[in-house]
Amino acid sequence: MRNILVLGAGKSTSVLISYLLEKSVKENIQLTIADLDIEQASKMYGNHENCNVISLDITDKISREKAIEQSDIVISMLPARFNIEVAKDCILLKKSLVSASYVTKEMMALDKEVKENGLVFMNEMGLDPGIDHMSAMQVIDRIRDDGGKLLLFESFCGGLVAPESDTNLWNYKFTWEPRNVVLSGQFGEALFIQEGKYKSIPYNKLFKRTEYIQIDGHGKFEAYANRNSLDYRSIYGLEDILTLYRGTIRRVGFSRAWDMFVQLGMTSDSYELPDTKNMSYREFVNTFLPYSDTDSVEIKMRHNLKIDQDDIMWDKLLDLDLFNDEKIIGIENATPAQALQKILSDTWTLAEDDKDMIVMYHRFGYELNGQKKLIESSMVNIGKDQSQTAMAKTVGLPVAMVTLAILNGNVSTKGVQIPIRKEVYEPILKEMESYGITFEEKESEYIGYNSKGRLAN
Amino acid sequence: MRNILVLGAGKSTSVLISYLLEKSVKENIQLTIADLDIEQASKMYGNHENCNVISLDITDKISREKAIEQSDIVISMLPARFNIEVAKDCILLKKSLVSASYVTKEMMALDKEVKENGLVFMNEMGLDPGIDHMSAMQVIDRIRDDGGKLLLFESFCGGLVAPESDTNLWNYKFTWEPRNVVLSGQFGEALFIQEGKYKSIPYNKLFKRTEYIQIDGHGKFEAYANRNSLDYRSIYGLEDILTLYRGTIRRVGFSRAWDMFVQLGMTSDSYELPDTKNMSYREFVNTFLPYSDTDSVEIKMRHNLKIDQDDIMWDKLLDLDLFNDEKIIGIENATPAQALQKILSDTWTLAEDDKDMIVMYHRFGYELNGQKKLIESSMVNIGKDQSQTAMAKTVGLPVAMVTLAILNGNVSTKGVQIPIRKEVYEPILKEMESYGITFEEKESEYIGYNSKGRLAN
Repeated sequence: MRNILVLGAGKSTSVLISYLLEKSVKENIQLTIADLDIEQASKMYGNHENCNVISLDITDKISREKAIEQSDIVISMLPARFNIEVAKDCILLKKSLVSASYVTKEMMALDKEVKENGLVFMNEMGLDPGIDHMSAMQVIDRIRDDGGKLLLFESFCGGLVAPESDTNLWNYKFTWEPRNVVLSGQFGEALFIQEGKYKSIPYNKLFKRTEYIQIDGHGKFEAYANRNSLDYRSIYGLEDILTLYRGTIRRVGFSRAWDMFVQLGMTSDSYELPDTKNMSYREFVNTFLPYSDTDSVEIKMRHNLKIDQDDIMWDKLLDLDLFNDEKIIGIENATPAQALQKILSDTWTLAEDDKDMIVMYHRFGYELNGQKKLIESSMVNIGKDQSQTAMAKTVGLPVAMVTLAILNGNVSTKGVQIPIRKEVYEPILKEMESYGITFEEKESEYIGYNSKGRLAN
Repeated sequence: MRNILVLGAGKSTSVLISYLLEKSVKENIQLTIADLDIEQASKMYGNHENCNVISLDITDKISREKAIEQSDIVISMLPARFNIEVAKDCILLKKSLVSASYVTKEMMALDKEVKENGLVFMNEMGLDPGIDHMSAMQVIDRIRDDGGKLLLFESFCGGLVAPESDTNLWNYKFTWEPRNVVLSGQFGEALFIQEGKYKSIPYNKLFKRTEYIQIDGHGKFEAYANRNSLDYRSIYGLEDILTLYRGTIRRVGFSRAWDMFVQLGMTSDSYELPDTKNMSYREFVNTFLPYSDTDSVEIKMRHNLKIDQDDIMWDKLLDLDLFNDEKIIGIENATPAQALQKILSDTWTLAEDDKDMIVMYHRFGYELNGQKKLIESSMVNIGKDQSQTAMAKTVGLPVAMVTLAILNGNVSTKGVQIPIRKEVYEPILKEMESYGITFEEKESEYIGYNSKGRLAN
């Protein structure tokens, strides 16, 4: 029997665990699921003969090391901040490690030791980052293998609510960690390059400078720029590409509405508001508006945000019951972001039967034999219900599949890495197709940005 | 002889050192000035019999400790980040310490040890923080001694260019550390309280939500909110005050223009731009504007910032030569803030004969014997020239004066503190009057915010 240790059993791990348990007999696997709170996991998996559920405080070094020692490979589905300690244990105890989190500098610094011990630390193995890397590199490698030269790479991804469950004016619900949604865009400026010109968008303009994208059969979406796209030049080997842009997908109109919160300062997570335990939604809103001894919170809000009488932005605010003076934040020492998350959760939480939807879309412009071409590649996946979400599926399956691949010796490259190599992405993208995660491709002529041949600025 | 060690001999220390040297014979003082670069200081003070100039690398622990050991009291005019190490040395070597920097948490944590050693660590002893504490507490204590109850405290300060040296469309020049001007407002949200309502202004609204203030004989100014005013409730003992606001003073129109840089993201110091060594001013500007293959940087700027043909905002930008494609940033790996500072320095640097101007203005609303009253207190000081600035004077004199007071045993309270006690502020404010630093007071009826008795929001 080979032992797989899964650290963290949050609701995002349901598909990951089901997949591994399904394969457990054939693959000769024993699964150990470790979390601080095991009530839910015990109920769901406790009776499976190839599954252990153990209670583990991840900050307890001794218990953590004991659990890792008894395994053959470790999957960490913990919040990203815990991964570095787990990684150090894995080196010490000579275990390979898989996670869906971004590679940090601290993680990258372990590369030499990981290689020396013949281990694989596979990071960014979920949806985004994860499937984005694999599906993009598959097309990029194909273009390059054919002798093409990449001119443009744009990549977009979003976790949305499925059309059939879309019941509010924002066309959005929390289908993943709500905190990440509220803080989205606050981790440094959006940086990218267009036609060779560097571009930088500050947080306070991020949700204003959206682009439209169109996906056959699913209509029009919008996207805002995502973090530092320039990093992907070296990661994907696209050092001299003219245009490289990564974005986050939302339903059309979401970003303009979200920007209201950004402009008011309601998404800040850098300080605690006073008295939030007893603060009403209305008082929360008024904190971000100028003092007046004559004007209502509503008219100050309309004036501050320049919302006309017939502007749907106003109805979006009412949809959240934002001016209610009886509903209470009820959180001790909340930051504005935490208070806003509480308010949004009232209307944006998935109902039992609600389905989520994942949208991923890449655009590759390239030149081959003197001709300029464009490949568009898109993937849309709809969840089953509020627990078997498309998000849990697209994050969990690649993590599970690569874990088996490493365990079975099918990943020959050692060290700290992300899934950009053919040996990793080819079998996984192929296997995912049988789970309904498929990319549609479309080819056309590449017109580019600089189509009219006028002077670029 | 008593030895005073001055760490750091930047141009802001000129008045501080002159004052101490003037008093050196009468007060039996030997001054040691220590800096990494002593060329300028040696030229200016090297020949004075009661003055030593020594070369000192502040990060060299052994040399630093030796210099501190040989002194009776230490003045730190170093950048704030160096103060904590100096403070720890001072405890070890049992020396009192004076600085103009804000008290950090780390500094406050030394309070017990400082008291146990019978020492005085006097911080925030410059202009702002410094003279603001002293001049405000003098009035606050007087109102309270008379039995009055404070309803409102507003405090404003700004370092400006004097009217006779005001030669650009921004009505502003760098009269102090340019970097602090560019980063102003980025150290956490502006928080304050008005008529019992908490208010928070995010950075992207800070320069839009200005107030006007009027100072007799000097006309109208504007002010934007300054950091967390709520902290001053406990510092000044104003726990139940209804209105507390601190602001930074600028000439009317400055903030609206400065906000253009904020909105574009040009004041960010959180990441490095690519290729700034060879980047032109024009390319810098274009980095923050959307890509276009047809439109000029100028029209994109006008459109992005909504600048009409006849709007002076545009002329302010031209005043800085912002669209020049030959002038180069010329700094390796500059952050946007560093690049912007370089551009501004071309036009905002004080000329040899330029004079600066300090403006400080307090407003105290209070109730005494059933009557509501307002005291306005203001101080305006104009510098002599580009080196003997009003800034150097108003920062240097209080530092120098309190150093002598501590040395002469006139500060009885021990520990880590700021100048809010009568024993400190009374003699210093009085002595400063003989140096032309005087506050004008004006009394009137206090009308308050909620004058019309309507429902507050």
